[in-house]
Amino acid sequence: MGLIPAAAPKRATDLWYTEPFDKGWRIAFRIRQTLYSGESEYQQIDLFESESFGKVLVLDGMTMLTERDECGYHEMLVHLPMFTHAKPKRVLIIGGGDGGTLREVLRHPCVEEAVQVEIDSEVMEVSRRFLPELASGFSDPRATVVVGDGISYVGNAPDGSFDVILVDSTDPIGPAEGLFKKEFYSQCRRVLREKGVIAVQSGSPLFQPEVLRQVAAIFKELFPISCSYLSSVPAYGGPWSFTLGSLGPDPAHGPSRPLEGLKGTLRYYTPSLHKAALALPRYVEEMVE
Amino acid sequence: MGLIPAAAPKRATDLWYTEPFDKGWRIAFRIRQTLYSGESEYQQIDLFESESFGKVLVLDGMTMLTERDECGYHEMLVHLPMFTHAKPKRVLIIGGGDGGTLREVLRHPCVEEAVQVEIDSEVMEVSRRFLPELASGFSDPRATVVVGDGISYVGNAPDGSFDVILVDSTDPIGPAEGLFKKEFYSQCRRVLREKGVIAVQSGSPLFQPEVLRQVAAIFKELFPISCSYLSSVPAYGGPWSFTLGSLGPDPAHGPSRPLEGLKGTLRYYTPSLHKAALALPRYVEEMVE
Repeated sequence: MGLIPAAAPKRATDLWYTEPFDKGWRIAFRIRQTLYSGESEYQQIDLFESESFGKVLVLDGMTMLTERDECGYHEMLVHLPMFTHAKPKRVLIIGGGDGGTLREVLRHPCVEEAVQVEIDSEVMEVSRRFLPELASGFSDPRATVVVGDGISYVGNAPDGSFDVILVDSTDPIGPAEGLFKKEFYSQCRRVLREKGVIAVQSGSPLFQPEVLRQVAAIFKELFPISCSYLSSVPAYGGPWSFTLGSLGPDPAHGPSRPLEGLKGTLRYYTPSLHKAALALPRYVEEMVE
Repeated sequence: MGLIPAAAPKRATDLWYTEPFDKGWRIAFRIRQTLYSGESEYQQIDLFESESFGKVLVLDGMTMLTERDECGYHEMLVHLPMFTHAKPKRVLIIGGGDGGTLREVLRHPCVEEAVQVEIDSEVMEVSRRFLPELASGFSDPRATVVVGDGISYVGNAPDGSFDVILVDSTDPIGPAEGLFKKEFYSQCRRVLREKGVIAVQSGSPLFQPEVLRQVAAIFKELFPISCSYLSSVPAYGGPWSFTLGSLGPDPAHGPSRPLEGLKGTLRYYTPSLHKAALALPRYVEEMVE
């Protein structure tokens, strides 16, 4: 007897992970449990099981992916350039430690080798343990995983050695800063084979317009054909941009070959969406013009 | 002297408005000040000045618009059907108390009369006072504002009296529930002129897939041509859906006439985006198939 009733109702811990997009706007996920939390040589890595978006991977406090909406990012980063190219055999992925980009690349049966260069082996380890659906490609015989710096790798790679290059980086602060510079993109162009295609994530048009502007301007200088396109990734605050450069095929012509033969089931990319993603809202057009 | 220093550093009130999209996901806006807060006959109305998104209008705890991204909603709800129609002269708007939809409709010089039926006059009053950029159309001589129930208005309207109908409602709970039912849409069809076009907001494909599914299915039954399309509205959690029904012109053919002549400057809609918005991500295609 007393102030505390004998059978007090239980109250669960109400845990929220919050990402501030700027000082005035936040997205928050209710967290069921923290599956992993650790500091690697390069960054803080957190993996949460969320209430509404499945597992959520967070690097240095920024959402990298949620199981629920990663398709909007990975499928659009990968299949637009991969289907723009007539027959990509050798593909280079810079970053993308969670494995989602590699998984999408390996859906294409024409791929003979996919080389992934990721600086932080612990991100890959966490993904292998907790996100096996994303990390499935790491054990594919066509995949070569290099733990190292993407800039050095590309700098040392022979001329004309890849059909498609995909840059799946974090934001241009911290370890990924150099991946948004002209010097790096220019090395990428050198490493592309004839008729090669490169696509990179180029930030949120809403919260990082300067990133998109800069990448689009550099690609316009470096590649005979270039364009930016959008996808919708709620966990990234809505619209997300990618920028593509091509030494030959034009992405505006749509996919170069039928989707049949692709392994597994897509949730986001379609041949119609390939072309449609290139049509930008007016305010984004103005950024990249 | 004591525990409180004589010149304690000032600390501002840190105020956040939060919308829960489901029990596990939230979007939050930092609020500089509350400009208006009141209860009308129909709903709670709040208007905030936010840190990052300009003014934010909230009805019954749900974000209706922010100045920063309302273009993605209003321009796509309005211009896609308005440019699908060859020459819309009489336009009916159901809901849309903030005035944004009316403003977009009146950009079209071919419009002779726009009738807006809004149940809650206080929303219009708040918009007139605090969102003059959105409410500008209320004083246009071509605009007729009716304070009343949209369902009754349409039920009593003569056959074939409007070229375009736009339903700019709140979510299908509370006052707007009946605006998502077959009976209402069927009355709308009756009220459309030959070759008329209707477009309605049909919810978030992510958080209200059942709304989109239902509206798309009803439109398929009622209209010879129907389709759903998407825009990107960060304050609504990312992708937002609209559904269009047509008695004649096909939205897939793109705008029926050039944009020149449209009053003012668009921030979102473009002729390319008109067609592109109809291409849906695979997971949304599956909802409306």
